[in-house]
Amino acid sequence: MMTTRGTMAFDPNKIRLYVDHDLANGASVQLSRDQAHYLGTVMHKKAGDQVFLFNGHDGEWACDILHLDQKETVVRATHQSRPQQPAAPLTLMFAPLKHPAIDFLVQKATELGVTDLQPVLTDHTTTRRINSDHLGSIAMEAAEQCERLDIPTIHDPKDLMGLLSGDHAGSTIIYCDEGDNVPGMLTALKGLQSGPWVILVGPERGFSPTERATLRDQDNVMAVGLGPRILRADTAAVAALTMFQASLGDM
Amino acid sequence: MMTTRGTMAFDPNKIRLYVDHDLANGASVQLSRDQAHYLGTVMHKKAGDQVFLFNGHDGEWACDILHLDQKETVVRATHQSRPQQPAAPLTLMFAPLKHPAIDFLVQKATELGVTDLQPVLTDHTTTRRINSDHLGSIAMEAAEQCERLDIPTIHDPKDLMGLLSGDHAGSTIIYCDEGDNVPGMLTALKGLQSGPWVILVGPERGFSPTERATLRDQDNVMAVGLGPRILRADTAAVAALTMFQASLGDM
Repeated sequence: MMTTRGTMAFDPNKIRLYVDHDLANGASVQLSRDQAHYLGTVMHKKAGDQVFLFNGHDGEWACDILHLDQKETVVRATHQSRPQQPAAPLTLMFAPLKHPAIDFLVQKATELGVTDLQPVLTDHTTTRRINSDHLGSIAMEAAEQCERLDIPTIHDPKDLMGLLSGDHAGSTIIYCDEGDNVPGMLTALKGLQSGPWVILVGPERGFSPTERATLRDQDNVMAVGLGPRILRADTAAVAALTMFQASLGDM
Repeated sequence: MMTTRGTMAFDPNKIRLYVDHDLANGASVQLSRDQAHYLGTVMHKKAGDQVFLFNGHDGEWACDILHLDQKETVVRATHQSRPQQPAAPLTLMFAPLKHPAIDFLVQKATELGVTDLQPVLTDHTTTRRINSDHLGSIAMEAAEQCERLDIPTIHDPKDLMGLLSGDHAGSTIIYCDEGDNVPGMLTALKGLQSGPWVILVGPERGFSPTERATLRDQDNVMAVGLGPRILRADTAAVAALTMFQASLGDM
């Protein structure tokens, strides 16, 4: 792991866990069996050691381990180590991919700060289902490791055209285009400031001509290019998210 | 796969194969057994169909399949479809990682145009070996798919300190730093124009204090940050390569 110019010093021994409990001064939280196993067996922690919890809305809390065994592990919140900060909405819209590319994509998108992962069904989509539970656990683990204070939402797959006219009619959609004559992404993003934002990458075999024409017709869709090489869908997503965060977000 | 604003139109049916033969007008090339299997069994190609070959120095050649069966597959070069272009030297220096992160890193780095992959041994390196043959095949496949005309060289692992004073004493080393008070990478790269370039990312547990001090002491080393979240080593490599190519290279 790497860190960066943020306000946190990198501490490879710091353990952060996501919980579905309210967090406040003195709150006792019972951890799951998986978390107990991780703390005790994998990380060799014991009662009295410190662990950090976050739940997506109460910030991050330093907690003391009160009790740790295979049956029950309880920690108590001692102080808030970081306040919750509102996350700017950033959706990654992507066609479902095969393993391991989709796992990779969810992990990296979480590290790069997306708030919503929206699988889309397109004309050339070959994989139409996703395993939400599995991808959710990948997103949770990535959020725990990368110091963010929330977990991205993984939505059910929807048709691309329905999303354009429905849920995301008011978003600015950055469409990673497959054709010539589109500006590079860094250039295209210069000077733009209004969200909410969606980054859209296509399936392995690209968008259909109909889809491309429709996308280019929308006022809120901006076609951008990602360079001279042909990137895989998962690489394109990571590259686009990186450039977005470096230009408009927090990188 | 996605394409982009390059000069090539995206054709998902185009097959590109790397060969270790000279390529010229009318040259006959015998493909390997793996390539024959891929062409015939996976892609359902047959004699008379077209395939594209490249070898890292003669450009890309359109070829007709003369003969295709399990024992022997021969193609003949008909015309050069793209001339060879010199690749700007760009080395990714990285600590060996566990699977699947290292496979991913090699694949993505190839797509993002690195010419050299240099594993480095650092104080906190936990994995000290790499499987060069396996990583070479991943780089070759990524090069075939992403339309580049060469294949990155995968070097043997070396000690970080030796590389700094030896092979890369004359390079500008962009060091993805783990501390505070370093400029973001896009900012740091503005106005810089002289290579050869090295991008250096650390091992999972970061660089040691001694290594960090030494790195920051070198005149040719530039420390940069990659944003407020803690990125895994493989994510950091992809993000750094993306920003480099977008700023100074070809993205």
